[in-house]
Amino acid sequence: MEERMSLIVFSGTVDKLMAASILTTGAAAMGMEVEVFLTTWGLEAFRKDNYKTNMRVSKDFEDFAPVMMEQMQVKKVPGWMDNLKGAKEIGDVRIYACSMTMELFDMKLSDLEPIVDDVTGVATFVERAKEGRITLFI
Amino acid sequence: MEERMSLIVFSGTVDKLMAASILTTGAAAMGMEVEVFLTTWGLEAFRKDNYKTNMRVSKDFEDFAPVMMEQMQVKKVPGWMDNLKGAKEIGDVRIYACSMTMELFDMKLSDLEPIVDDVTGVATFVERAKEGRITLFI
Amino acid sequence: MEERMSLIVFSGTVDKLMAASILTTGAAAMGMEVEVFLTTWGLEAFRKDNYKTNMRVSKDFEDFAPVMMEQMQVKKVPGWMDNLKGAKEIGDVRIYACSMTMELFDMKLSDLEPIVDDVTGVATFVERAKEGRITLFI
Repeated sequence: MEERMSLIVFSGTVDKLMAASILTTGAAAMGMEVEVFLTTWGLEAFRKDNYKTNMRVSKDFEDFAPVMMEQMQVKKVPGWMDNLKGAKEIGDVRIYACSMTMELFDMKLSDLEPIVDDVTGVATFVERAKEGRITLFI
Repeated sequence: MEERMSLIVFSGTVDKLMAASILTTGAAAMGMEVEVFLTTWGLEAFRKDNYKTNMRVSKDFEDFAPVMMEQMQVKKVPGWMDNLKGAKEIGDVRIYACSMTMELFDMKLSDLEPIVDDVTGVATFVERAKEGRITLFI
Repeated sequence: MEERMSLIVFSGTVDKLMAASILTTGAAAMGMEVEVFLTTWGLEAFRKDNYKTNMRVSKDFEDFAPVMMEQMQVKKVPGWMDNLKGAKEIGDVRIYACSMTMELFDMKLSDLEPIVDDVTGVATFVERAKEGRITLFI
């Protein structure tokens, strides 16, 4: 069994991307390897420059969104992209784009933020995830 | 430890059901056993014939829904029910309905699509999931 | 490896809190240790007295919400807070508040329901979760 956490990032809302990035940072800080698999709306969120304007918050809690966004500014909380960049600097973090989503939406790796390392398939990702300790669907 | 992936399918939107069915297919193709536990809205989605008309997409990304549905048609992407049927043919995949949801909504096994194998309780499902390698909540 | 289930409760809708509480009850009944990590909207749901008025249901299925709420009353289904209290009585269940969410929303432990045992950080939670058998993001 490997000291690995695997995250399937399906959602592309800021609140869930924050959670994913904080889990990544926490695990990387503990010395765990982290593999992130971006699929569906999670991959959309990594289109070039999208993170700069993405203000999407889970509709279930949209009444809290203004307070959250304001508090994040007041407390100077780093954004999820900054968290992921930081996690890559301190640990072993790899970010993959789901090949099936790429095909569905006619995306190329060059359409995505440079933090995305490579494109991979679900089966390959699952094959590695199952040797790890934690796998989450976000 | 068993070579098993367990999926708790709580949501019943097409985008999440697609993700669940693709994960099932991928894991089955790698020779893993897959157990799917349908609960709450995930079970609603398996009511007889519902999958033929279900166009529900996560509200957080409903602006993308028309493009997704169109691309799926253009690229002739098989639907989630077809994926699950295919996964059952190539691998060891079992689909269970949550007994508590059945009781809450007065459902009988005969109200559900025939792909559902049986009814089971949460505790029994967790007991088996914990011996496996991956458990996800979708 | 420990006989432990770890739940990251990110959402604060009644339907997802019900699922989390039932999973907790089921695992506790099987003799598993359960650790619950409340973050973001999941933590909001544990503010003092909030559970008494929280009627929030996933927006993706809000058309089903009235039927669900009615059926829960008709069948006298215990609420999620009662389930968690019951699980704590029969088993080894600990409930933690995410320190980062506490800071973001200026919360103190005394602002939360007494069922919350303590405040902890993501890294500490992940460190323990990875030694367990199941970790879910809800």
